[in-house]
Amino acid sequence: MWLAIGCKSKPMKTYFDCIPCFVNQTLQAVRMVSNDERIHEQVLRRVLEHISEMDMQQSPPAMGQTIHRLIREATGSPDPYREYKRKWNTFSLQLFPELKRRIEDAADPFDTAVRMAVAGNIIDFAARPRVNEAIVRRSISAALSTPWKDTAVETLYREVMRARRILYLTDNAGEIVFDRLLIERLPMENVTVAVKGSPVCNDATMEDAVEAGLKEPVNVIPNGSDAPGTMLKECSVQFKGEFARSDVVIAKGQANYETLSKCNHNVFFILMAKCPVIAREIGCKQENLMVFREFSQGTI
Amino acid sequence: MWLAIGCKSKPMKTYFDCIPCFVNQTLQAVRMVSNDERIHEQVLRRVLEHISEMDMQQSPPAMGQTIHRLIREATGSPDPYREYKRKWNTFSLQLFPELKRRIEDAADPFDTAVRMAVAGNIIDFAARPRVNEAIVRRSISAALSTPWKDTAVETLYREVMRARRILYLTDNAGEIVFDRLLIERLPMENVTVAVKGSPVCNDATMEDAVEAGLKEPVNVIPNGSDAPGTMLKECSVQFKGEFARSDVVIAKGQANYETLSKCNHNVFFILMAKCPVIAREIGCKQENLMVFREFSQGTI
Repeated sequence: MWLAIGCKSKPMKTYFDCIPCFVNQTLQAVRMVSNDERIHEQVLRRVLEHISEMDMQQSPPAMGQTIHRLIREATGSPDPYREYKRKWNTFSLQLFPELKRRIEDAADPFDTAVRMAVAGNIIDFAARPRVNEAIVRRSISAALSTPWKDTAVETLYREVMRARRILYLTDNAGEIVFDRLLIERLPMENVTVAVKGSPVCNDATMEDAVEAGLKEPVNVIPNGSDAPGTMLKECSVQFKGEFARSDVVIAKGQANYETLSKCNHNVFFILMAKCPVIAREIGCKQENLMVFREFSQGTI
Repeated sequence: MWLAIGCKSKPMKTYFDCIPCFVNQTLQAVRMVSNDERIHEQVLRRVLEHISEMDMQQSPPAMGQTIHRLIREATGSPDPYREYKRKWNTFSLQLFPELKRRIEDAADPFDTAVRMAVAGNIIDFAARPRVNEAIVRRSISAALSTPWKDTAVETLYREVMRARRILYLTDNAGEIVFDRLLIERLPMENVTVAVKGSPVCNDATMEDAVEAGLKEPVNVIPNGSDAPGTMLKECSVQFKGEFARSDVVIAKGQANYETLSKCNHNVFFILMAKCPVIAREIGCKQENLMVFREFSQGTI
């Protein structure tokens, strides 16, 4: 069935410009979870070795997966970002009631909920290691005040309202609370939310879905993978079946775009374009908050 | 005699923060001299392999040397930056008469000439690949208008006036014309100017000294090395002898600081601190224009 309905994706390739960024992200990531310079050096050297031999036709998240496997191995911790993830879930939950009220009071609650979801994409240790509360609040203000450039959000609304099965692919911890704001505006009985199968950087796992209060109201499944984004070939049979059966997929964040780009499926991407490579690939400006289906894009 | 007078240096080590920067510089440098993506990829992969195995006790210019050897090998060009170097020599020579007049008209011509020399250090493809004429002019204005924080320039003046042998270590092409402005304020009969033994990035070689009009008025020697800065152990016997016999060394640019730091010799460093690692090492702010002997520093 999988191949029959054409759910193979042709993910984005890795550009040369991604390479200095991988090395930078490695150093920032390993320093967040260890003060031991021997661990920094071990991880850096092994990542450099991997990059020197990498297949550039793979999407950038394949290297993210390798980097974080090496960090977990070197630190001996299965989930080195647990503490950071909890901190950001807690922070986002403190904002939750206020943001929910703003959505309920808005002229167009669905549109406002989409804006909250895209604003939350700023919580991303890989691309924005220095994110803080002030930056998140600025991201919310920007998302609420900038006009959309097209009607992608209206199209998304129409599609989710008539869909029988909606699959929501989460991105980061903390951000998942912002996703909950949007998920609660969807026909929840039709929604399945996917989280990572096991920890990778600050990506949301089942533990984060529970902390975010998402586990009760909707069906949450792990995708079976420890890669950033959604590398379909590595995901579990259960997840791939859910993906294939869904009428609409909502995919959060850059890594989901990088891995599901040109996927022959009805995917709406919601993300902030955090790097120049992605911005060029999508055809927007860096820092733009984007909601789009491929070949049908919208910017706010 | 070499060891007897203690001219071995204990160069700066390579920090983990230098590593993403090496990768970035590789990509920028190879793109400047080739449009062939296969060459970009070949150089990148080989540099990554080298960095994954590098001795971090070496100074950062050791990796610069490797990167540019790989670029020359992959492009098949012995001097891939020749065109850029000529362009910057020509540009700087066009400025030369005006800058020389400003020095002659200044209340303190020596001090003004030092300011011109430090301003010229902005012409550095490795650290500032996007340098342009407007940036150079801003660098000159900044150097002329900011007060020094100590008396290092006065000390330098006293020392060069009583020195029997002065060795001036140049840095980049284009910049060497700015160096000429300072060299012409020194007792030129006592001055030897050193350039790189063979091409590395946009560092000045004998050809640039000739283009800059330096070859006639002073003695110019190659240092025998293709490393950025001055890796003493790789330099020619002639250069090492000149270094050892000099009473005062004037060393331009970051790479000379990185390779001659803690050298047991009378070295005045003149440079712009272009990266946070160097700024931390020297104890100044990034972008500061610095004239100092170690343990006797001055900022403008």
